[in-house]
Amino acid sequence: MNRPRTDARRHHDPQVRGFASDNYAGAHPEVLAALALANVGHQVAYGEDAYTENLQGIIRGHFGATAEAFPVFNGTGANVVALQAVTDRWGAVICAESAHINVDEGGAPERMGGLKLLTVPTPDGKLTPELIDRQAWGWEDEHRAMPQVVSITQSTELGTLYTPDEIRAICEHAHARGMRVHLDGSRIANAAASLNVPMRTFTNAVGVDILSLGGTKNGALFGEAVVVLNQDAVGPMKHLRKLSMQLASKMRFVSVQLEALLAKDLWLRNARHSNEMAQRLAEGVRAVHGVEILYPVQANAVFARLPHEVSERLQKRFRFYFWDEAAGDVRWMCAFDTTEEDVDRFVAALKEEMARYTP
Amino acid sequence: MNRPRTDARRHHDPQVRGFASDNYAGAHPEVLAALALANVGHQVAYGEDAYTENLQGIIRGHFGATAEAFPVFNGTGANVVALQAVTDRWGAVICAESAHINVDEGGAPERMGGLKLLTVPTPDGKLTPELIDRQAWGWEDEHRAMPQVVSITQSTELGTLYTPDEIRAICEHAHARGMRVHLDGSRIANAAASLNVPMRTFTNAVGVDILSLGGTKNGALFGEAVVVLNQDAVGPMKHLRKLSMQLASKMRFVSVQLEALLAKDLWLRNARHSNEMAQRLAEGVRAVHGVEILYPVQANAVFARLPHEVSERLQKRFRFYFWDEAAGDVRWMCAFDTTEEDVDRFVAALKEEMARYTP
Amino acid sequence: MNRPRTDARRHHDPQVRGFASDNYAGAHPEVLAALALANVGHQVAYGEDAYTENLQGIIRGHFGATAEAFPVFNGTGANVVALQAVTDRWGAVICAESAHINVDEGGAPERMGGLKLLTVPTPDGKLTPELIDRQAWGWEDEHRAMPQVVSITQSTELGTLYTPDEIRAICEHAHARGMRVHLDGSRIANAAASLNVPMRTFTNAVGVDILSLGGTKNGALFGEAVVVLNQDAVGPMKHLRKLSMQLASKMRFVSVQLEALLAKDLWLRNARHSNEMAQRLAEGVRAVHGVEILYPVQANAVFARLPHEVSERLQKRFRFYFWDEAAGDVRWMCAFDTTEEDVDRFVAALKEEMARYTP
Amino acid sequence: MNRPRTDARRHHDPQVRGFASDNYAGAHPEVLAALALANVGHQVAYGEDAYTENLQGIIRGHFGATAEAFPVFNGTGANVVALQAVTDRWGAVICAESAHINVDEGGAPERMGGLKLLTVPTPDGKLTPELIDRQAWGWEDEHRAMPQVVSITQSTELGTLYTPDEIRAICEHAHARGMRVHLDGSRIANAAASLNVPMRTFTNAVGVDILSLGGTKNGALFGEAVVVLNQDAVGPMKHLRKLSMQLASKMRFVSVQLEALLAKDLWLRNARHSNEMAQRLAEGVRAVHGVEILYPVQANAVFARLPHEVSERLQKRFRFYFWDEAAGDVRWMCAFDTTEEDVDRFVAALKEEMARYTP
Repeated sequence: MNRPRTDARRHHDPQVRGFASDNYAGAHPEVLAALALANVGHQVAYGEDAYTENLQGIIRGHFGATAEAFPVFNGTGANVVALQAVTDRWGAVICAESAHINVDEGGAPERMGGLKLLTVPTPDGKLTPELIDRQAWGWEDEHRAMPQVVSITQSTELGTLYTPDEIRAICEHAHARGMRVHLDGSRIANAAASLNVPMRTFTNAVGVDILSLGGTKNGALFGEAVVVLNQDAVGPMKHLRKLSMQLASKMRFVSVQLEALLAKDLWLRNARHSNEMAQRLAEGVRAVHGVEILYPVQANAVFARLPHEVSERLQKRFRFYFWDEAAGDVRWMCAFDTTEEDVDRFVAALKEEMARYTP
Repeated sequence: MNRPRTDARRHHDPQVRGFASDNYAGAHPEVLAALALANVGHQVAYGEDAYTENLQGIIRGHFGATAEAFPVFNGTGANVVALQAVTDRWGAVICAESAHINVDEGGAPERMGGLKLLTVPTPDGKLTPELIDRQAWGWEDEHRAMPQVVSITQSTELGTLYTPDEIRAICEHAHARGMRVHLDGSRIANAAASLNVPMRTFTNAVGVDILSLGGTKNGALFGEAVVVLNQDAVGPMKHLRKLSMQLASKMRFVSVQLEALLAKDLWLRNARHSNEMAQRLAEGVRAVHGVEILYPVQANAVFARLPHEVSERLQKRFRFYFWDEAAGDVRWMCAFDTTEEDVDRFVAALKEEMARYTP
Repeated sequence: MNRPRTDARRHHDPQVRGFASDNYAGAHPEVLAALALANVGHQVAYGEDAYTENLQGIIRGHFGATAEAFPVFNGTGANVVALQAVTDRWGAVICAESAHINVDEGGAPERMGGLKLLTVPTPDGKLTPELIDRQAWGWEDEHRAMPQVVSITQSTELGTLYTPDEIRAICEHAHARGMRVHLDGSRIANAAASLNVPMRTFTNAVGVDILSLGGTKNGALFGEAVVVLNQDAVGPMKHLRKLSMQLASKMRFVSVQLEALLAKDLWLRNARHSNEMAQRLAEGVRAVHGVEILYPVQANAVFARLPHEVSERLQKRFRFYFWDEAAGDVRWMCAFDTTEEDVDRFVAALKEEMARYTP
Repeated sequence: MNRPRTDARRHHDPQVRGFASDNYAGAHPEVLAALALANVGHQVAYGEDAYTENLQGIIRGHFGATAEAFPVFNGTGANVVALQAVTDRWGAVICAESAHINVDEGGAPERMGGLKLLTVPTPDGKLTPELIDRQAWGWEDEHRAMPQVVSITQSTELGTLYTPDEIRAICEHAHARGMRVHLDGSRIANAAASLNVPMRTFTNAVGVDILSLGGTKNGALFGEAVVVLNQDAVGPMKHLRKLSMQLASKMRFVSVQLEALLAKDLWLRNARHSNEMAQRLAEGVRAVHGVEILYPVQANAVFARLPHEVSERLQKRFRFYFWDEAAGDVRWMCAFDTTEEDVDRFVAALKEEMARYTP
């Protein structure tokens, strides 16, 4: 094949993959192909293009007739735009202490959104009505930022899942108290694949008002969308997106990536595959004496506890992160491009390093 | 050629181009090809990838040894991150009333950055030391937001250019008053092409402290960079970028686009071409009786005044925007993919519509 | 009289008064006496005290049955709370370029409220429907911060006044475009005194939605109130006041000062007197050859243009400020405690200094 | 005595006092007398008056030669100004979960300051180096708001005290990690009185960089000050105070109240008295069977646990608040004007209500 001309060069070895993050993967080739389709010729900028318009139908197909997508650049942007959309200036957000918005957004919700996060410790990254109630009070008390939205993550930062019924219970609980529900769906595809239900089943069908729909970890180069499910809950989303610096000028290139993922089943193929690789990995790890798996493996993440020095040696062979270095906890993520061989090699390496270990 | 598989479809006619915006164009094919190069295999997320590292050398080649690039998603993001970088909580920004940051960012500088803009009316979109002095005072006065940075745009929102000496004078003036200088280089390539000098000549060489480097309008799908030239002027840029929701997880895909543009001369080819098309357009327009060109045509924009109804009829044939509808002012932008035929057809259409016009 | 014991000492000469600012005056003795009345014994903090409750009736007496007062600390606070109350996260404020919120709040509206100010130059500090229209457009355009409120000042920063009809026209104009109207009433008492009408006549009666009611310049030690006239226009004001750091714990001491001013006619006596002193001053100044009065003297301010060196010599004898030093413009303010002798001495001094002046 | 004229009326019974809050008390008569001293005649507004200047010497007397006071209106304002002063745009604040800035400022630190609070649960409201380390990490990690300041409260929200050595250890720990230390001294006088040391001993002498000095709870009508101890730690405080809406125009009236409290020993008399009343109250309560005192009584607060219905009956006779209604925890505060008879009557009432209680 004649490679098209470019002055850019390849700076990395495309054979190397690790278990550090589903963000370490590149884009799925079908996503890249979609970009070429959308390219050439002029399209109205800032979201009035044919690709963004077409995306709306796809989104309604997935999330129901009330759904409307607002493509944005990244997950932080999606979350901060979505949370601003369902809060007033005096609003606060109830979330798990482990929520990405609390621990991994560099303070963007507070600094950019002016949002106070009312956090609750959880055993597994999941809120419940009871846990929510630890922060859901004092709406009349001006000394307290007003709880206006509950934010949950599906799948969670700990690789666990809410059932549709659990989310329904949270939504009913929140709505009964005048609060909205936001779902951080950075890995919503993994959740749907694992639950084996449409994404609508645990969002629009059970009362979620607004969600952040992840594209990047599902195989896009970049690109997410805020999906509004309850139109009564929000104001002019386009203004919010723009002032939040999340308005893409050539939006067709965000929308067509989401189309490539969502028009048929690429989103599901990618998610299923990464979930399956996590199951294979968990299975392999369970057979290694001395390594403990920490949470139910329900999506594409495996959290484990093992001797610190083993992790360090293993990190020289495969990239991954400590989750809680003091405790010896690590996180292993599978991506859409993780192969069975990757997993098997990794498990074999883990076995070797554990075998070399003498406490 | 076998088109790679994708579930996405083409929703537009790739033959249609207009004069509405350089953001209406797609991406240059060489940029698309670069994406494929960078794809496949794992790369560290959030900017520690080989492409972003490689980009630094390219940026230093263009802007000098002190330069460091921080890729971001879009122009609003680049500007708000850059301006926050050179201001304290009490800082204000002096800019032209017509500056993009003042009129076209949806209030992002104020709402996200907490920045007060101290604006000055200008005849042609260009600040001068004298114009700056209308707002450059009162640093000791706490009743006044403290002027800490002068922001200029090159090329300006009105398609005009600063000479390197004009920017030097602004920088000397600003620095002498303890202020920094930010250059909004959304169309910096057009400026360099038109001035026929390296980008360094009117930035680092004359005292600009920080700039927003445009990629999107120059032929990328998306992607800009904050380029720090004066390292003493800024704090931890990575933190600022992250909390400003401008940190791309798969940053290799921003960086490799900038590499495709900047590694050799694609940036310049694209800019030169769009500038030349603007010259051709201006030449054509000047020959049409009753149409007045409003500003010097120095980059890729032509501003004109013509009868309102003529514009409206013309808009049915080619997309473009009114700039000041009451005055009958319109803006015609040329892009990297504008062709001579596009220009000639447009001028012919303009002639026709003017001929049909009876005041 | 036995002075009550205190460890504080007097550090100033109580005989000295100038023309710098109505904020240079102290508090009216009747206001101080009110503090003593409200003191001793416990009262619920944070606004649930008997004085704040009683104030509501007084406010309704002045502003009509829909009025509700939210006492705050200072004028900046009143303005920023009020403007936040009538804007969403995406909202902007149309105001005169000379408005206090634009030039004298240290950027608080932008930094604390996230508010973009859309300013309009005015000849005399007064907006008109026509001037408002320079910024009142583009509500659907997300690239533009959405104009949601028009803010006017009565009396203006230039000592001029709106008639009730002028404010009615502004309110009708704004409301027809879906905008609210805020009135910065830092010197509302001076306006009412000069117009010789109740405050309601040019606020609630003509459509103003919310206002900042000044106490400090009217003779209080400190203390203003946000007065909501249109309850439909606002959300939970108490939350906004609290998160804006404007909630006084011992609020009785703000409320009782406003009671002392507003229960009967102290507000009017004070305002009338300072207005009369400004008239006397203007009359005296008009008789001095070479000094030009710049704006209609309609409240308690006199703006004049005179030789710079005369101003400087005069400033050694009486404190006052340059307004536009380059132009030689000065501002002379009269306060509730300015005496006829003060004015006459000042005019005499002005005459002397002008007489010594040889251009 | 002839009461000075005022149109205000008394709306409360000055004989009634409760145990709800030290903010329910009025002002000390010597503070009121100071206001009269400072009144009459003109003084430069916005802090350039003789009273504010004089206050600086008093503050240096208490806190050492490096100290500088910036009077503000209230505690929320003092805290948010102080915390902004020692953080950059990317900074975060480590504090106890129970800190006032976290639970009682209506989200002002987040909304107005853009500050993320990194909270730590504590047994008694007190941080330690170990507890701080739960949040003191990740300075290089842009995904995490950067910990730049540790904020402690003295006396704490739970009525407990840090020893000077404990604060020294915190400061050394924080400084070694490049962080500043802020002390919320809303009740700093109670702490100094209880520890029987000068305020400097547990602030400037042990490394505190900046503090919020409480006036209101110590007997002022209103008024606190940000006191900068480490001048290298801060930027232009006056700008920060102004843009934070905390600049009093007639600042003499804040400063003279602080002078009345601090010039000699009124601050200490008031604090000692309220502390003694808390001790008397605790002693009385300990003798009541079935009532548990929850924390060491070291300042002017007594926290107790007792049957919920007893508290409710008692609240009909004396005002006070539940602290944790589910647990049956209540807070009883003593103020500078609490009398021995108040305490004894309250204890007697508690005994009666407990005697009537049958579980």
